[in-house]
Amino acid sequence: MLDVKDIYKDYKKYLDKEISLQGWIRSHRKQKEFGFIDFNDGTYQKNLQIVYDNTLSTFDEISKLKLGSAITVKGTLVKSEGTQEFELKASSVILEGDCMDDYPLQSKGRPTREFLREIAYLRPRTPLFNAVFRVRSVAAYAIHKYFQDRGYVYFHAPLITASDCEGAGEMFQVTTLDLNRIAKSGEVDYTKDFFGKQTALTVSGQLQAETFALAYKKTYTFGPTFRAENSNTKTHASEFWMIEPEIAFCDLEADMDIMEDMLKFVVKYVLDNAKEEIELFDKFVEKGLIDKLTKLTNSKFVRIDHKDVIKILKEADVKWEFEPEYGEDIAKEHEKYITEYFNGPVFIKNWPKDIKAFYMKQNDDGKTVAAVDLEVPGAGELMGGSQREEDYNKLSNRMDELGMDKSSLDWYLNLRKYGGCIHSGFGMGFERLLIYLTGVDNIRDVIPYYRTPGNCDY
Amino acid sequence: MLDVKDIYKDYKKYLDKEISLQGWIRSHRKQKEFGFIDFNDGTYQKNLQIVYDNTLSTFDEISKLKLGSAITVKGTLVKSEGTQEFELKASSVILEGDCMDDYPLQSKGRPTREFLREIAYLRPRTPLFNAVFRVRSVAAYAIHKYFQDRGYVYFHAPLITASDCEGAGEMFQVTTLDLNRIAKSGEVDYTKDFFGKQTALTVSGQLQAETFALAYKKTYTFGPTFRAENSNTKTHASEFWMIEPEIAFCDLEADMDIMEDMLKFVVKYVLDNAKEEIELFDKFVEKGLIDKLTKLTNSKFVRIDHKDVIKILKEADVKWEFEPEYGEDIAKEHEKYITEYFNGPVFIKNWPKDIKAFYMKQNDDGKTVAAVDLEVPGAGELMGGSQREEDYNKLSNRMDELGMDKSSLDWYLNLRKYGGCIHSGFGMGFERLLIYLTGVDNIRDVIPYYRTPGNCDY
Repeated sequence: MLDVKDIYKDYKKYLDKEISLQGWIRSHRKQKEFGFIDFNDGTYQKNLQIVYDNTLSTFDEISKLKLGSAITVKGTLVKSEGTQEFELKASSVILEGDCMDDYPLQSKGRPTREFLREIAYLRPRTPLFNAVFRVRSVAAYAIHKYFQDRGYVYFHAPLITASDCEGAGEMFQVTTLDLNRIAKSGEVDYTKDFFGKQTALTVSGQLQAETFALAYKKTYTFGPTFRAENSNTKTHASEFWMIEPEIAFCDLEADMDIMEDMLKFVVKYVLDNAKEEIELFDKFVEKGLIDKLTKLTNSKFVRIDHKDVIKILKEADVKWEFEPEYGEDIAKEHEKYITEYFNGPVFIKNWPKDIKAFYMKQNDDGKTVAAVDLEVPGAGELMGGSQREEDYNKLSNRMDELGMDKSSLDWYLNLRKYGGCIHSGFGMGFERLLIYLTGVDNIRDVIPYYRTPGNCDY
Repeated sequence: MLDVKDIYKDYKKYLDKEISLQGWIRSHRKQKEFGFIDFNDGTYQKNLQIVYDNTLSTFDEISKLKLGSAITVKGTLVKSEGTQEFELKASSVILEGDCMDDYPLQSKGRPTREFLREIAYLRPRTPLFNAVFRVRSVAAYAIHKYFQDRGYVYFHAPLITASDCEGAGEMFQVTTLDLNRIAKSGEVDYTKDFFGKQTALTVSGQLQAETFALAYKKTYTFGPTFRAENSNTKTHASEFWMIEPEIAFCDLEADMDIMEDMLKFVVKYVLDNAKEEIELFDKFVEKGLIDKLTKLTNSKFVRIDHKDVIKILKEADVKWEFEPEYGEDIAKEHEKYITEYFNGPVFIKNWPKDIKAFYMKQNDDGKTVAAVDLEVPGAGELMGGSQREEDYNKLSNRMDELGMDKSSLDWYLNLRKYGGCIHSGFGMGFERLLIYLTGVDNIRDVIPYYRTPGNCDY
């Protein structure tokens, strides 16, 4: 079966030939002697125009076909006299699936994104969301391609985990215990739970990915992660996909090389392989998107220490809402300023140790860790990474300082005893990348069926 | 940084040249004047032999390097006089990460798979598991490549779901309710749960994938699914990855075409891109594996109705443990017989409706549904698929018959009202494929960190 995409790729191949297509009616204009159907089969962003006329014995039936209906159409691809280069002159149009009158996408005018969230199962039929979720697919493949072509081993991190469970207020608990029975008996007995202990959904596959990095040298995860954070913002979802590469014999500088190279590759791949979709976003969602993305692929990312960023921020002639401070995190307004200051993406590195995770490599100054965040113009933090602490004693002491339970992470510590070497990695939230790539600025609109506090439909 | 894989791909390119590598010591034999290190950097199945001699000032230090240690080695790639074609004559070997004496992989002899499960985080450093998890990565990529090259849109199905939750004894509940508080208060209030209702981990993304098929024509999922089944068999895990393609304008016959084509592509891709790994399995795990896989790629899969399979089974001169019956499922012994009978893969189609799922297309006979299972020699059922019921009334009636709650699946039913057309899909358990590809017959050994009843480590 031919796809509309095939025709757009090389329409001359099909010109004046009899072809057959299957898809849906996006719109339908009827006149007395002619009819025009905007036809879309989901394989391509653009519609194909179908023309039929009253020389067909089924003209009246075809005229009655409704928007949203599934059809099989046969006809000849011809040069068009209208605005498009070509169109399909139908010899037959057969109804494959009717569309009822209460179809929510019937109405004229562009439906709002808020309205479409209420009928999320129909969203991918609209041009905007069709483009968003195709870009999601193309970008996912670009990520796999990047890493596979470079010899990385794709690692499926476990989703249900018992590590890290204690005191983790932002994790979803996973259980087969009968809650009603607990209410009745007044007792919680985890030895009777499915895994014989308390378990939760993972918030990151990084620690486990390190076990693969120290066996394969280069590994990456690409899978779902979960956060039970009660945030209702445009950038928080409870279920989202993460990419977490991890590389042995790799220090922070080399880590940044990979982050930069990977991001440029993925952006370029999407520009090349979802051209029409990006054009649509550039036109209707974020003016200048193509320029922004193209500029990124050609720019050299700046690398600067956290303390030097704070210095720049302090010296800036700006009235900050949050005063920048050495030893502290930076706010959204600071991220924005610094990418504008350098007019491009900025790696901020060597962060104060107390605001970063326990596993990050402690620098010799005793104050900072070899961590890095990538800030990009217009999107803020897009990735975060670090060199990992490879020294058993330093890591162990840090875990003690933070009052962590080391027994459930003995395997993680042991990696430092058994041929552990310097290694680094980073994480990228896939939806954050999609927001950057599409300009669609609400995470609810780049996930097919999003989960946020109070929302778990489909 | 050069990979060992680069050298094996084209060693002549590096012959008599100075190169530098980083990786781990797999074994180390010392003599008075020479030493040999089996070196592996995780990028390639085979080791590279490193030779050093006492002309090096650091000879004594190098001699002391222990198995498992991480090293940087510099030297010249030379033709070997030993069994291998080439080896690295070291000019320097530097220790990057020492390996303690209690390293569990120190001991001589091949450790058992059961022992290695206890130290799963070190498994990928052994030749067998290194090969298994690399094949896992290569096969995953092959699947993406197959579908992406053919215009399928990759769909991330939601993991946490409220659909299908009622009476689903085999689902994991997901909650942020405090179980201890429930025990104290004696009350379960789902309005206070994170999503405001009872939620669980998905067992399949198919129903949601259908919404994408009816927008993009061709879609596929590749993600984790969960089953809280209390089974301790070689083929059951509580967390596993599934591939679920879904195609509009596709009937059962076309569905089988895709299943067959996809499987052959993936097997061939793995044979071509994980040659050394498959050779290792053929040698040490399943004799004849390469023949089995090659034969599959060249065979034409048989297609036969369930009732005709039962007829063959009934006529067979075999004493069955389970008597084959029309209208019933078939047992493992039957699967085995039928693939041997046809000496190749067999699609069994048109199954009795009462043993199959509600969404499968009801055939005109009123007794069967347009479902198909693929049985392959030596592995049994590898995939299952069906044409989906596209008729609103038939689907609705079937759900009523089965006493299902239609309110949470109204969107699924609505797909039949709004341009729904004939469509089909199938599911393949990724681990089942890996068992078939590697000959490693326990699901615990093809998942990096497996989850089974009572087991949730790492």
